Amino acid sequence: MDHVVAGIVGYRGYSGAELVRCLGRHPRVRALTLDHREEDPTDAAARAGGLPIVFLATPPEVSMELAPRMLAAGSKLIDLSGAFRLRTPAAYSTWYKETHTQQDLLAEAAYGLPEFCRERIPGARLVANPGCYPTAANLAIRPLLDAGVVDRACGIVCDAKSGVSGAGRKPSLKTSFCEVTENFSAYSVLQHRHVPEILMISGLEEREFSFTAQLLPIARGILETIYFRTAAAIGAEDLLEIYRRRYAGEPFIRVHPAGHVPDLHAVAHTNYCDIGVTVDRATGRAVVVSAIDNLVKGAAGQAIQNMNLMLGYPETEGLL
Amino acid sequence: MDHVVAGIVGYRGYSGAELVRCLGRHPRVRALTLDHREEDPTDAAARAGGLPIVFLATPPEVSMELAPRMLAAGSKLIDLSGAFRLRTPAAYSTWYKETHTQQDLLAEAAYGLPEFCRERIPGARLVANPGCYPTAANLAIRPLLDAGVVDRACGIVCDAKSGVSGAGRKPSLKTSFCEVTENFSAYSVLQHRHVPEILMISGLEEREFSFTAQLLPIARGILETIYFRTAAAIGAEDLLEIYRRRYAGEPFIRVHPAGHVPDLHAVAHTNYCDIGVTVDRATGRAVVVSAIDNLVKGAAGQAIQNMNLMLGYPETEGLL
Amino acid sequence: MDHVVAGIVGYRGYSGAELVRCLGRHPRVRALTLDHREEDPTDAAARAGGLPIVFLATPPEVSMELAPRMLAAGSKLIDLSGAFRLRTPAAYSTWYKETHTQQDLLAEAAYGLPEFCRERIPGARLVANPGCYPTAANLAIRPLLDAGVVDRACGIVCDAKSGVSGAGRKPSLKTSFCEVTENFSAYSVLQHRHVPEILMISGLEEREFSFTAQLLPIARGILETIYFRTAAAIGAEDLLEIYRRRYAGEPFIRVHPAGHVPDLHAVAHTNYCDIGVTVDRATGRAVVVSAIDNLVKGAAGQAIQNMNLMLGYPETEGLL
Amino acid sequence: MDHVVAGIVGYRGYSGAELVRCLGRHPRVRALTLDHREEDPTDAAARAGGLPIVFLATPPEVSMELAPRMLAAGSKLIDLSGAFRLRTPAAYSTWYKETHTQQDLLAEAAYGLPEFCRERIPGARLVANPGCYPTAANLAIRPLLDAGVVDRACGIVCDAKSGVSGAGRKPSLKTSFCEVTENFSAYSVLQHRHVPEILMISGLEEREFSFTAQLLPIARGILETIYFRTAAAIGAEDLLEIYRRRYAGEPFIRVHPAGHVPDLHAVAHTNYCDIGVTVDRATGRAVVVSAIDNLVKGAAGQAIQNMNLMLGYPETEGLL
Repeated sequence: MDHVVAGIVGYRGYSGAELVRCLGRHPRVRALTLDHREEDPTDAAARAGGLPIVFLATPPEVSMELAPRMLAAGSKLIDLSGAFRLRTPAAYSTWYKETHTQQDLLAEAAYGLPEFCRERIPGARLVANPGCYPTAANLAIRPLLDAGVVDRACGIVCDAKSGVSGAGRKPSLKTSFCEVTENFSAYSVLQHRHVPEILMISGLEEREFSFTAQLLPIARGILETIYFRTAAAIGAEDLLEIYRRRYAGEPFIRVHPAGHVPDLHAVAHTNYCDIGVTVDRATGRAVVVSAIDNLVKGAAGQAIQNMNLMLGYPETEGLL
Repeated sequence: MDHVVAGIVGYRGYSGAELVRCLGRHPRVRALTLDHREEDPTDAAARAGGLPIVFLATPPEVSMELAPRMLAAGSKLIDLSGAFRLRTPAAYSTWYKETHTQQDLLAEAAYGLPEFCRERIPGARLVANPGCYPTAANLAIRPLLDAGVVDRACGIVCDAKSGVSGAGRKPSLKTSFCEVTENFSAYSVLQHRHVPEILMISGLEEREFSFTAQLLPIARGILETIYFRTAAAIGAEDLLEIYRRRYAGEPFIRVHPAGHVPDLHAVAHTNYCDIGVTVDRATGRAVVVSAIDNLVKGAAGQAIQNMNLMLGYPETEGLL
Repeated sequence: MDHVVAGIVGYRGYSGAELVRCLGRHPRVRALTLDHREEDPTDAAARAGGLPIVFLATPPEVSMELAPRMLAAGSKLIDLSGAFRLRTPAAYSTWYKETHTQQDLLAEAAYGLPEFCRERIPGARLVANPGCYPTAANLAIRPLLDAGVVDRACGIVCDAKSGVSGAGRKPSLKTSFCEVTENFSAYSVLQHRHVPEILMISGLEEREFSFTAQLLPIARGILETIYFRTAAAIGAEDLLEIYRRRYAGEPFIRVHPAGHVPDLHAVAHTNYCDIGVTVDRATGRAVVVSAIDNLVKGAAGQAIQNMNLMLGYPETEGLL
Repeated sequence: MDHVVAGIVGYRGYSGAELVRCLGRHPRVRALTLDHREEDPTDAAARAGGLPIVFLATPPEVSMELAPRMLAAGSKLIDLSGAFRLRTPAAYSTWYKETHTQQDLLAEAAYGLPEFCRERIPGARLVANPGCYPTAANLAIRPLLDAGVVDRACGIVCDAKSGVSGAGRKPSLKTSFCEVTENFSAYSVLQHRHVPEILMISGLEEREFSFTAQLLPIARGILETIYFRTAAAIGAEDLLEIYRRRYAGEPFIRVHPAGHVPDLHAVAHTNYCDIGVTVDRATGRAVVVSAIDNLVKGAAGQAIQNMNLMLGYPETEGLL
């Protein structure tokens, strides 16, 4: 079988390197790494010229610069940065603290969370691959809101913990070994730039949603512990049934049986999102735990899932 | 200066070993380790006979067996287990799944959280040293309830993370290196046996309180992220002022300035509890982070703080 | 294509679980897990009855009990324990401190280090899969001795470091998280039971070989730092040439260029053995670093490599 | 008691911060942190003007710039860098790849390994605090050479492993969490700049000594595994007796009984060097394990030990 060649810009970062690794197992696609630092963006775009599909594992400002050139050259794009995830330039400048320079593309981009946005992805020229925290959060929260089981007056709490690879490969004191090992800390409390993606997909209002990001002393994995009060008296089985029905046929969502809580080892190096629930029916307290590998379902794996959809391959190709 | 001799039963466990280490720096007290496994409890009690103060770093059932004998021999006791923390035998059997065999002592015991129960400790024969999770939780939550700033209809969420030493030194698959490293997992969701201690001291009702315990891949430290909605429009400074006023003069509580979030490195090997707050005044969302070393303020250090009170020493002796 | 079914006894241990995982990617073989603990060995042998190939990821005494029954039933066996690795019952009882109960099979077994013993493996009924430390050591040392470049009067030092999974999955204090994290320790200095396997394959005498095993605070990986004095004046390139010539065509040995030293990340989750050298020609001091994943090339991966040879498949099938 | 004030330049690095922490427990000395980055070196020297003792926890080039000014102002100095450890400018430029700018001070400086150089320290104006690797190595090796038990034709192998804090606090990819966790790697094989310090104190020739530095995935601690062949038939007890006699009365050296091997937990946060031996009398193979905390006995603790000697205090003051 002839291989399709997929370009990867930003292959040195953790997400880009994971893309190279994961594509190494894909039966129909071969990775071509493109360097945007040793040449200027125009050159990278030129080298990517004939490629049917290109992954941008670059910072948002680089993605905004490269995207129009590569689209003009006829490539389809999957952007792993936050550049094209939000719906409006205003939202982008509020959360990313800079002006959006490609507003037409922002309007055009399809949000690449297949479990909720699958229809638009195959026809899209530009897919915005979701953030890692939002992937774990939306897969857990959206079915709850759709089913109307959340007491929205009290809102939802999402206590999120991530491995250090989520902070990228650029050296910094905050991610240096001695500062992280045997430590644990919160950051961006209530104001993480991934919050608007969660609101956008889940349907929550900002006032209904409390989100804390925290740094785990591990390399990879995101676990989110999600709390809410039920709108009516329901039990764990009712909640599980909501997830099971919503995710029937979804190849990458695993709903745990009652009493079983996900952990990070089970999802490491996989494209799965594991979901488990605990409910105290008498008092209406509910806890949902959602776990992914931030570099796979939270980045490179989901990007390949989107590529499969865009190129007309089986959605799980190279991912199981 | 002559040293007082303090007995330590259960010195092989992590809390007991930490007691030995910490007492090594105490200027007035010398530790005598007593073994309850190589001899029967009566012998341990006999060997402890003349000691003015004995620490029980033993499982609850051993503490219940040793306590009456040692009290009868004239020792004052500080029990680090859960045996004497709850108020009623019924609560004990509900949460610890066994019958309480020393109901008189349960009624007599003073709860050893000095910041809230300091008056009863100096005169007590038996002090129940608080659990690690409840120490971090109550120090953060109780002032909020006293000040009336919590919207109790929505309750409080406490997302707690602990280092592995909190699970004790007995080998088990769950605490073995390969299972814990590069992992993170929740356990006892909504039903941890430390919950009733938090309700007892904070004044919360069970239906108002959602608590999840989680295992961090580190040896020591507890960080709790606490979420609530404010009962009225207040900001971070209002909340900080509540803590500062409540803890003025308290030697072991450090309230962080606004915008600064505690982490575990800062409290490791210390008896401090660090508290930081984030509030979004417009929407009423509030997050409090509380951090301690589970073996020090969550066990051995707080036990020595209690000992200082019981023996009439300065409360910080040997702890700064 | 029809799959061959391979039995795995001892699938709960770390090596057995890795076998299940690795076989999940093998295009011709499907794994069937067999439990030797919930039934007696006869039953496990019976259930394995018709299987063409069975992996024993069991302690040596269980392997000695199961092997004759399973061979009698017509299965080919790959034993991951130390039961059939040494050449004589006397050597076995010296190093394993127990009598060998299957001396005929000990004589019959082929040692499964393909790079040095490939001829006997395809025709063998019983293959003794090498130990993890000996795999990394022999691949580095044997070519040196064959080439005559070692000053044998001074011998060879092998300073070996292993991740904790090498100690097995059974909980113990020595492998519990709090004892291992932020620690490093040596064990079985000069008397590790893997020493005779290294002598047997490398051709060294015991007096020529100093070996220390050490526990790294990581889950998987073995790195061995090997020191010797050169018998004549040679440089790094001479040494590399010896390795390159010896391992030309070997799919799982990667010889690093001069000045580049292997590490564990590069071999994690792979069947590779990475080798790097440093030589000071003027003084004759030489250092060779050898790195493998102890669960893959040091256990499950090498076992599958042996299976491929025994079943007539391409040697790398399912392993790249 | 009035406190002496000790200046600390470079207090932000890991060694400097450890000095601040350790001096916090010293009964006679108070630390004053001096910043050499926010001001020019002349200013730092000026601010340090009246101080009786100053610690330089700075890179060698900064130490060379500050030392003459501070000595001229009347301070005694303890330099934690490599600037003043070697005996000749030639040796310095060979190993540190730069010219020495203070050759008179290099000649004047006393090497601060009290166990072997105690006489010169009290009267010195400038003490060169030993490197971390050399401290562990020389304490283990020198007594062996003095006693003549090493077969020097075969030389000594020192396989050294260090926690990441030894690489300093400046962020780099090599010391970032994701690169270090679950990894292990060697660096500077046979050419680490600490080698000449080991030769200088131990009396070994370079051709007799093979040294490899390696990075452990832990924050602090150095363990060195040292191999040699005995010059005559001796056993473990003979070797232990050499150490015990040599270190009788030394407060910071702990010689382990035969069969007991040091680990890093036992020395963490202490100024101890633990030494253990294994010998196979029949073949002459010997292994010595030496363990220290690289930030304490390998840096800040030893610096305070030197300060105690320079100021006429008991050598262990503030260190036990």
